[in-house]
Amino acid sequence: MLVTMLALEVAIPYAMRMKTNSLHVFAHRIFPLLSFCSVTEYLLVVRGLKALRRSFSFTAFVVLLCWEIVLTCDSRLCVACVAQQCTPWPMVVLSRGLCPYFHTGVRARNQWKDDGPGGAACCGDPLLFEAYWRANPNLGTVVIPGWYRMSYLTRDNAAILYTDALLRTIRDLHGMVGNAVTKDRYIVVGTGSMQLINAVVHSLALLNSDRVSSVVAKAPYYSAYKVQTEYLDSPLFNFARDPARFTGNATGRGAQIELIASPNNPDAQIQEVPQNISEHVIYDHAYNWPHLSPITKASDHDIMLFTLSKITGHAGSRIGWAIIKDYNLYRTVQWYVVLNTLGVSHESQLRATQLIRTIIKSYSEGIRNEKGLFHYGREVLESRWATIQSILKNSSRFSLQELKPDYCFFFAQIVDPSPGHAWIRCNYEEDVDCAAVMLSAGIIGRKFGSGNRFVRLSLLKRRSHFEILTARLTKLVAQTSSST
Amino acid sequence: MLVTMLALEVAIPYAMRMKTNSLHVFAHRIFPLLSFCSVTEYLLVVRGLKALRRSFSFTAFVVLLCWEIVLTCDSRLCVACVAQQCTPWPMVVLSRGLCPYFHTGVRARNQWKDDGPGGAACCGDPLLFEAYWRANPNLGTVVIPGWYRMSYLTRDNAAILYTDALLRTIRDLHGMVGNAVTKDRYIVVGTGSMQLINAVVHSLALLNSDRVSSVVAKAPYYSAYKVQTEYLDSPLFNFARDPARFTGNATGRGAQIELIASPNNPDAQIQEVPQNISEHVIYDHAYNWPHLSPITKASDHDIMLFTLSKITGHAGSRIGWAIIKDYNLYRTVQWYVVLNTLGVSHESQLRATQLIRTIIKSYSEGIRNEKGLFHYGREVLESRWATIQSILKNSSRFSLQELKPDYCFFFAQIVDPSPGHAWIRCNYEEDVDCAAVMLSAGIIGRKFGSGNRFVRLSLLKRRSHFEILTARLTKLVAQTSSST
Repeated sequence: MLVTMLALEVAIPYAMRMKTNSLHVFAHRIFPLLSFCSVTEYLLVVRGLKALRRSFSFTAFVVLLCWEIVLTCDSRLCVACVAQQCTPWPMVVLSRGLCPYFHTGVRARNQWKDDGPGGAACCGDPLLFEAYWRANPNLGTVVIPGWYRMSYLTRDNAAILYTDALLRTIRDLHGMVGNAVTKDRYIVVGTGSMQLINAVVHSLALLNSDRVSSVVAKAPYYSAYKVQTEYLDSPLFNFARDPARFTGNATGRGAQIELIASPNNPDAQIQEVPQNISEHVIYDHAYNWPHLSPITKASDHDIMLFTLSKITGHAGSRIGWAIIKDYNLYRTVQWYVVLNTLGVSHESQLRATQLIRTIIKSYSEGIRNEKGLFHYGREVLESRWATIQSILKNSSRFSLQELKPDYCFFFAQIVDPSPGHAWIRCNYEEDVDCAAVMLSAGIIGRKFGSGNRFVRLSLLKRRSHFEILTARLTKLVAQTSSST
Repeated sequence: MLVTMLALEVAIPYAMRMKTNSLHVFAHRIFPLLSFCSVTEYLLVVRGLKALRRSFSFTAFVVLLCWEIVLTCDSRLCVACVAQQCTPWPMVVLSRGLCPYFHTGVRARNQWKDDGPGGAACCGDPLLFEAYWRANPNLGTVVIPGWYRMSYLTRDNAAILYTDALLRTIRDLHGMVGNAVTKDRYIVVGTGSMQLINAVVHSLALLNSDRVSSVVAKAPYYSAYKVQTEYLDSPLFNFARDPARFTGNATGRGAQIELIASPNNPDAQIQEVPQNISEHVIYDHAYNWPHLSPITKASDHDIMLFTLSKITGHAGSRIGWAIIKDYNLYRTVQWYVVLNTLGVSHESQLRATQLIRTIIKSYSEGIRNEKGLFHYGREVLESRWATIQSILKNSSRFSLQELKPDYCFFFAQIVDPSPGHAWIRCNYEEDVDCAAVMLSAGIIGRKFGSGNRFVRLSLLKRRSHFEILTARLTKLVAQTSSST
């Protein structure tokens, strides 16, 4: 206890010298874990901070703080800590010996592959946005009392499992960004667009159930299209890879359902409407946002999928939506969501609504100011793309996908490329497995359904990850140059 | 504005005379909608209340309050209002003309079938618990800042999509209640047990993929078993209704997967292990909690499903879990969740953890006191069951399932029945459709896969719903008696 108090007596004055906008920003920065206490507990600690600022009576405050944290929040604090992988100093002191979760967290962190240096370029987790929300701790917070939305259903729309507020917010967002037409379209909310991919495939196949539908995707395609479709198998459809292999009804194979990511994952290319190939096209617009790709027009397709993950970075909330023109398809997709998961988390819906409104508000108030999330995301990703380009520009061993500056209607200017991924080709004949070449340099990339010559590196991760990636890539390229 | 101020000048003093434990309880009671503002906004209003209490300067406070609510929260307040179908008086005044959502809510409420008198006994939404959480507004609240758990993954368990904290809390809950063995078992969290029903069926069929598995359920069974299994069809399995029709491998039809709800939905009977019928049995223990059924032993089956919905009433959170003995099955079910929805909402996970901990805390501190959720639930449901029994006891037209008092280890005493549903049989020869008979009296019940002679009435809904149900049922029984 003495050690705890001494540690805090050093740490708190140090923290108090930080520039902070307000007491709440301060409280969030120093004790992010406090957010996991109840409102009452949170207020108690904030009151403590206020008392501290007034009286500078450290000892009294520390006693209060220890009392609050250890006795009223204890294990919840540890959850917060594990959740954020944070080791704020009071936690380290307070948790040792008190909190089993904390130690689990530390141990597990060392085992965690993706977060280690090796995994710095793997997987599509959009962690770069975390810094934005941490820097703006007053944005997007929700307080959810025990009695909030306990029903399966929302009352503002009969037998519908998601809120009108969320749907309206989604429409407002598309209206502001100008990336998709929502007028006279239906919206289905899903547990991530992952659920909706299968929901739409299943529903299209069901509406064409006199035939077995072929699900196709042109390489390189998002690998989940194939894995998910094959795993969540159905007598109604099967995965048939490349649309070029099929000629529709002529083969007697039934309806063709094409999955198209635009901008494409992995290579960020805009995909246009395929020519005379597919009967049904599902446009996965996960990356069709102004920080990830120039907005050149409002997408106006029959079936469009979006996800919160790549807009605000909240992948863990599992909120996706499908914008659908046909009423029958809309009802069928909705029914899939009902029978699959009986709806979508109401907590996630509330938070998504709040987060999206925060974005809309920042732009409507500041009129395309420099503090909006899209400006932040574009700035980071343009700079990352330029870095990757400069590392690879003189390499004959590796080549990068080509992307050109384009006019973006949202930013009202020509913008440089800012893709979420680098799509790298290994050119040397002996580099038959490009992912293995990267791995030998300590970089975990991902193969993407177009042979072994290519590897996808994520540019969406935390800054620390990106720095490790560029250091290792620079070393790899330098080794190659010096050996040739 | 003048009207608003006048209304608040009357309303606030009225409210201030209420017995409240603290300012926060007060704030929550009077302005539940405030919970949807950000922390800062919430604090501002609480500060306003404090100022009011000190100075009793109503006018100044009302101006502050109007300013805060209308200008900083506006549409969010309306969401809160619609979400809870509440019409607290300041909202009515403030919203009129200001808030399109509010009017949508009011209009939609009138259209809402299930919430009207007719739907009072339909559907399994466990709304009776809402009163418990409203009466204890400081319990189970979570504050979620913008940066909380943005990743798909949790860092405390490599490549796992849900938190150790939730799993640990679930184990603690089962340990406290004594209703299921979790030691040396694996736990998979799903988007409600709805997702897990199909995840387990799919996985069992996949692990026996050399044959087409038959999914069976003995009538009367939870209707979703059939509807979901048939809709989320697969080449690996099909729904084959009654297990008695099949004799396992002898028919050459492959593995048999039996779905058993215990206590059963709809009739609340405890289901024992079937005799020499099924190869794989999935025990759906949604109702295996001390407020819904006496806990006579810790269930120790290979596959057990649970859901938050019927424990705390948070159906909208979509949190369910499977407790699984076999490691291969566990991994396969987990993989289904990954490919189906890429995990489970982190907001829901946090809230579920907090809610369950609240329950555990209330019992560990009070040692089975009278304020715990299970005591509350049992008290309400025992009384409802007694009411239904007394209405039907002299009726020859309708009979009710038989349930006996039993010793409950959790309450450490013999307890009366407290089922979630009344399972009613229409005895008159001419009443071939029991649901239609109920409907003629204004009661919407549900058929449950065992012919038309039976109807299920929910006892889990709000008190107002139950009162409408009993009034109409009493009238129906009286009509029958007088006509005979």
